[in-house]
Amino acid sequence: MLADLALVGFGNVGRRFVRLLEERRDQLGRDHDLTCHITGIATRRHGTTYCAAGIDAAYAAGLLERGGSLDDLSPAVNSRHPKDGIGVIEALARSTAPLRVVVETTTLDVDAGQPAIRHVRLALGAGCHVVTANKGPAAFAYRDLSMLARSHGCSFLFEGAVMDGVPVFNLVRETLPGVTIRGFRGVVNSTTNHILSALEEGLEFAPALARMQSEGIAEADPSLDVDGWDAAAKTAALANVLLDARVTPLDVERTGIGPETASRARAATADGRRLRLVASAARGVRPGVRLEELSPGDLLASLRGTANALILDTDTLGNIAICQLDGGLTHTAYALLSDLITIRRGVRS
Amino acid sequence: MLADLALVGFGNVGRRFVRLLEERRDQLGRDHDLTCHITGIATRRHGTTYCAAGIDAAYAAGLLERGGSLDDLSPAVNSRHPKDGIGVIEALARSTAPLRVVVETTTLDVDAGQPAIRHVRLALGAGCHVVTANKGPAAFAYRDLSMLARSHGCSFLFEGAVMDGVPVFNLVRETLPGVTIRGFRGVVNSTTNHILSALEEGLEFAPALARMQSEGIAEADPSLDVDGWDAAAKTAALANVLLDARVTPLDVERTGIGPETASRARAATADGRRLRLVASAARGVRPGVRLEELSPGDLLASLRGTANALILDTDTLGNIAICQLDGGLTHTAYALLSDLITIRRGVRS
Repeated sequence: MLADLALVGFGNVGRRFVRLLEERRDQLGRDHDLTCHITGIATRRHGTTYCAAGIDAAYAAGLLERGGSLDDLSPAVNSRHPKDGIGVIEALARSTAPLRVVVETTTLDVDAGQPAIRHVRLALGAGCHVVTANKGPAAFAYRDLSMLARSHGCSFLFEGAVMDGVPVFNLVRETLPGVTIRGFRGVVNSTTNHILSALEEGLEFAPALARMQSEGIAEADPSLDVDGWDAAAKTAALANVLLDARVTPLDVERTGIGPETASRARAATADGRRLRLVASAARGVRPGVRLEELSPGDLLASLRGTANALILDTDTLGNIAICQLDGGLTHTAYALLSDLITIRRGVRS
Repeated sequence: MLADLALVGFGNVGRRFVRLLEERRDQLGRDHDLTCHITGIATRRHGTTYCAAGIDAAYAAGLLERGGSLDDLSPAVNSRHPKDGIGVIEALARSTAPLRVVVETTTLDVDAGQPAIRHVRLALGAGCHVVTANKGPAAFAYRDLSMLARSHGCSFLFEGAVMDGVPVFNLVRETLPGVTIRGFRGVVNSTTNHILSALEEGLEFAPALARMQSEGIAEADPSLDVDGWDAAAKTAALANVLLDARVTPLDVERTGIGPETASRARAATADGRRLRLVASAARGVRPGVRLEELSPGDLLASLRGTANALILDTDTLGNIAICQLDGGLTHTAYALLSDLITIRRGVRS
C-alpha cells in the first residue's frame, strides 16, 4: 500500500526519521506492505517544497545540513511551491494515495501548542492521518483532536511525545485492554535527570548544565527543560490520554531546577535518598512536576543519567513500570515510524 | 460474538480467571463485543464436566473449594462427561460457536512440558484458539506450536507465562514493530527474589523460605522456584519467542538458591551490591539463570520483594525495561483475559 507523507518540521528528528525510513524501506515493504513517498516538506526558516511524484528527502536533509534551502530544489513535474506547513498539508490533502500521513515535528510551544495544533487539525479535517513527536497537540488539545480524528476515520498518534520510542501510549492502548489507569509517577525529562545525577556527584549546577550542553543532551536554550515545562507538557499529555483529564501544561503544578538545587541534591544523597524531578497525576488529583526526595527502594530513584521511567498505577495489575534506559534522536524517529506502522496495521487492504 | 471456552486445569489461576470473567462480563460485551460461555472444565483430581449450553463456572469453582468434585454436577441437557482434558478439548472442537478457545492452566512440568503441550497441540489442530498461563508449551515447543497455530488460522497466546499480566510478549509483538531484540536480562521469579531480599535483611534461608510459604508466595513444594526451574522455563520461553532460539528449559544453564546463599547475599550487600537471580540470553549466547552481584545502578538491583523486571536489549531503542512491581493471582488471571481480548480483536466480525 502506498503512503504519501508530508513532513511539517524538518529539524533533527524529522531528518533522522527520513533516514530511518530509507534504512527500513525493504523491511516496511516486506513485513507491512507499506511503501512511503515523501511528497512534501515544510520548514520554518529553510524553505518548503511539494512534489506529488515524491521528493528525495535524504538529499533534502543533506542540503539543509549544508546550509541550503528547500526553495533551491529544482522544480520538477507536478511540483508546487506551498509557502508553509499549512500549504504543504493542503497539497497532501489533494493526493489520491490510499494513505496520506502528516508527520508533524515542529518544536514545542508551551504557551498554546501552536502552530502544531493548527497543523494537526487541518490534516485530520482533510482526512489525513497524523503522527507527531510534538507534545503540544496532546498536551493542549487531546480530546478535540482525538474526536476529530475519529469522526474522519483517521489516526492521531504521538508515541514520540513521551519517552521517545519506548511505548507508553501504545502500551496502554494495545496491551492493557480492560485495565483502568488510576494514576502515574515518572521521570520524563532526560536533561534534568542527567543534571540531578551530576549534582549528586558533587558538580555545581552551571558546570553540570554546560556539560549536558556540550554533550548535546541539553538545548542551547535549556529553559524548557530546567524550568520543568517539557515535563509539564508530557504530564498534561499523559493525564489527558491515560486519565481522561482535561488539562493543559498551564494547569500542571510545576517546579524546575536551578543553582539552589545542588545543595538539596547532595543533602538527599547524604541521607541515602535521591532527589528527582517527578511527574505525577491521578484521577481527581492536580497533576504536578515536583522535586521529590525518593527512598532507594523507589524505582525512580535508581534512574541515572538520561534514563526515564513511568510507573502506572492500575486497577488490575497494581503498579507496572516501563523504562527507557537509553535515549536519543533515533529513538524519537523510531516512534514516528512505529506510529506509521500502527496506522498501516489499522487499514484493511 | 460468542466464544465457547474450555478450561483445562482449574486451580487457583483458573478459578480466579472465571471470577474475573464474571466481573468483566458487561465490559467485555460493551467494549469488545465478546460474550463468553464456559462449556467445559477439566481437573486432574476433581472431576471433569462439559455442557454445550454453558456451565456456571463460578459455582463450579466454589464447589471445588468446598471439597466437591465436578463429577457431582447434575447432568444437564447437552451435557457430556468427558473423562479428562483431552476429552473436554474434543468436545469443544465440536462446538459451532464463532470463537472456540482452550484456556490451559495445568501446572508446569519441567521435564517435557506435558500434558500441556498435548492439550495445546490437540486444540490448535482442531481449529481452537489457545491461551495459557503455563510456561511449558512456549518453553518446550514454541516453534512447532506457533507454526501449527498459523496453519490452522488460530492464536496461541501465553502472556501469563512470564511476569503474570504485565505485557512482555504483547509488548514486543504489538508495540515494537520493526525492532529486533538482541538479548534480555531479567528477574523473573518472585519467590527467589523475595527470599534474596529477606537474606539481605539478615534472615537465614530456612526461615525466609518458611515466611514466603506462610504468606502464600512460595509453594508447599518450593523446589521449582528455589532450584531455578521456574526461571529456566521462563528464560527458554523468552529466548524462543523473542530471540528465535530453539531451546528447552534443559538447555538453560541453571543456578538455584539455598542455605549457602545467605552469606553470599549479605557479603554483596556489605559491598554495596545486590545478589540477584538473573535470567539472561542473547542471540548466539547460551541462556542462563545465574546468581549475579549487581551494582546499585542496575535496575535489577532495585527490585525488592516479589517485584520482577525484564530489560530488553534492542537494535533501535537501546535498553528498555518493563517491570512488575506487584504480583498476584489476579494478575495471572488478567493475562488470560488479555489474551482472550487479543484473539477477539484479531477476528473480523
